[in-house]
Amino acid sequence: MLASWREGPTRRAIVAFVERTVAEHVPVAERVAVFDNDGTLWCEQPLPSPADFIARRLSEMADVDPDLRDRQPWKAAYENDPTWLRTVLAEHYAGDDRALPTLLDGILAAYDGIDVDDFEARSGAFLRTARHPTLGRRYVDCAYAPMVELLGYLEENGFTSYIASGGGRDFMRSVSQEVYGIPRDRVIGSASTLTYTSGPGGGTITHNAEADYLDDGPQKPVRIGSRTGRRPLLAAGNSNGDVPMLEFAHRDDGATLRLLVAHDDAAREFAYTTGAERALARAAEQGWTVVSMKDDWTRVF
Amino acid sequence: MLASWREGPTRRAIVAFVERTVAEHVPVAERVAVFDNDGTLWCEQPLPSPADFIARRLSEMADVDPDLRDRQPWKAAYENDPTWLRTVLAEHYAGDDRALPTLLDGILAAYDGIDVDDFEARSGAFLRTARHPTLGRRYVDCAYAPMVELLGYLEENGFTSYIASGGGRDFMRSVSQEVYGIPRDRVIGSASTLTYTSGPGGGTITHNAEADYLDDGPQKPVRIGSRTGRRPLLAAGNSNGDVPMLEFAHRDDGATLRLLVAHDDAAREFAYTTGAERALARAAEQGWTVVSMKDDWTRVF
Repeated sequence: MLASWREGPTRRAIVAFVERTVAEHVPVAERVAVFDNDGTLWCEQPLPSPADFIARRLSEMADVDPDLRDRQPWKAAYENDPTWLRTVLAEHYAGDDRALPTLLDGILAAYDGIDVDDFEARSGAFLRTARHPTLGRRYVDCAYAPMVELLGYLEENGFTSYIASGGGRDFMRSVSQEVYGIPRDRVIGSASTLTYTSGPGGGTITHNAEADYLDDGPQKPVRIGSRTGRRPLLAAGNSNGDVPMLEFAHRDDGATLRLLVAHDDAAREFAYTTGAERALARAAEQGWTVVSMKDDWTRVF
Repeated sequence: MLASWREGPTRRAIVAFVERTVAEHVPVAERVAVFDNDGTLWCEQPLPSPADFIARRLSEMADVDPDLRDRQPWKAAYENDPTWLRTVLAEHYAGDDRALPTLLDGILAAYDGIDVDDFEARSGAFLRTARHPTLGRRYVDCAYAPMVELLGYLEENGFTSYIASGGGRDFMRSVSQEVYGIPRDRVIGSASTLTYTSGPGGGTITHNAEADYLDDGPQKPVRIGSRTGRRPLLAAGNSNGDVPMLEFAHRDDGATLRLLVAHDDAAREFAYTTGAERALARAAEQGWTVVSMKDDWTRVF
């Protein structure tokens, strides 16, 4: 149980929360936990895996169509230059979304018209074979072992855990069961609109080049509430976009746990606070539990 | 087991489907069943309960604001005249949605700004106390006993059942567990957009006067696929809007069951085919299983 968590206040806070929930006989149906994915359950540096997946597809498109090579985000993907995307994401984390539509249009165009089954097969193949650019591991091996242990510990104690990711729902579904033990129907994430077309074999559902919603910031509690019909007792995140989700985790007169994963381990993973400034400040103000990867985890992977 | 289902081809088709699914060791995670609600799991005549709920609220609004008494749908609600709404719904079932925006605007305005917890409390109170206008039963007692037995039979055999309703998701969640044994998170239905607002006690989620989606027709397979990440093996409906959902239920080289509930029992419930014409034609063409309330059920409630 929590074998990779070092004895200390963080581990004690987790155990105290779970033991209190069980001791107070909180109904199992109300034991809902939600986890951001990129940067919380697995690596998001130097780029989140969904961005790598999309970038490779955009580069393929620019291979075929030279006109795309001068247009963002195809240009950055084709030149294999992460600067532009990093800038857009850094601006987004800082609250400036002016460049976001250009990025989103590219993301949405990348898989326009694809059948959901085909999309899932491609996502799964990518995550099971592509390697993280600096760690050398396959993406599916970039999950944080202590967080996987936490998911298991919660399940043993009657909790139902969900992924609530800014990344694509249909992207993560391809591997959520094998990586985290979280079944596909418990993945909440960003999504494009979909179209159903009648046909033999039960018809098909295809992706449109139109955002349904971006599951970040205040959309996270909205999507969690829509999906589960519950207010979670535990929320775990790592960035500014997770603040509303952490705030949403609440129980009147009961135990609640808000975990913020701090990336402070340059030796084993990465050390950065960009995109997490407001989250770290809120955690300090509100007494949320900050997980130090360096101090609280005996191993990362 | 299926005690209220009369021995005959319909009951045999259900049992054969379930027994084949189990005999073929279809993984439990893939045993997904989806049910329309109004007219499939409980009564929808003379008006579906969500319409009654909204109409009462619109009438209250017109009580307070006389200007609303000349505008649809407030006028119809205030005058307690179901003609206008019946016409709009009949047109919708026939594929003519010209009057739908006026209706939807009224529906969306009825609970604009309400907190989701408050909305659920009002929905639950209505369904547990208001009585069906002609049957004299409380709405929660209008569920079809044979369908509730079917849900139980499926659960015993490892199936996970969902409601996929054209009615409001947050409306049905208030009673889905007690009426059907379906937990709140397995209710898929129409929804307005929601807004999360930070605040003490974990913040609040409120309804906006804006449709997120109307869960009917081809939106049903889209919402089922989005929510479950699966293609169902069983789908049950009763109207034209359920055709795409029934068509979507499919398994290559495996058992599938499409149930269409036919309202042919004027003595115990209602006899009507309006709004189900295309569904009945498709059922005949494709060999879907038509449930005759009159012949297949020994009791309705």
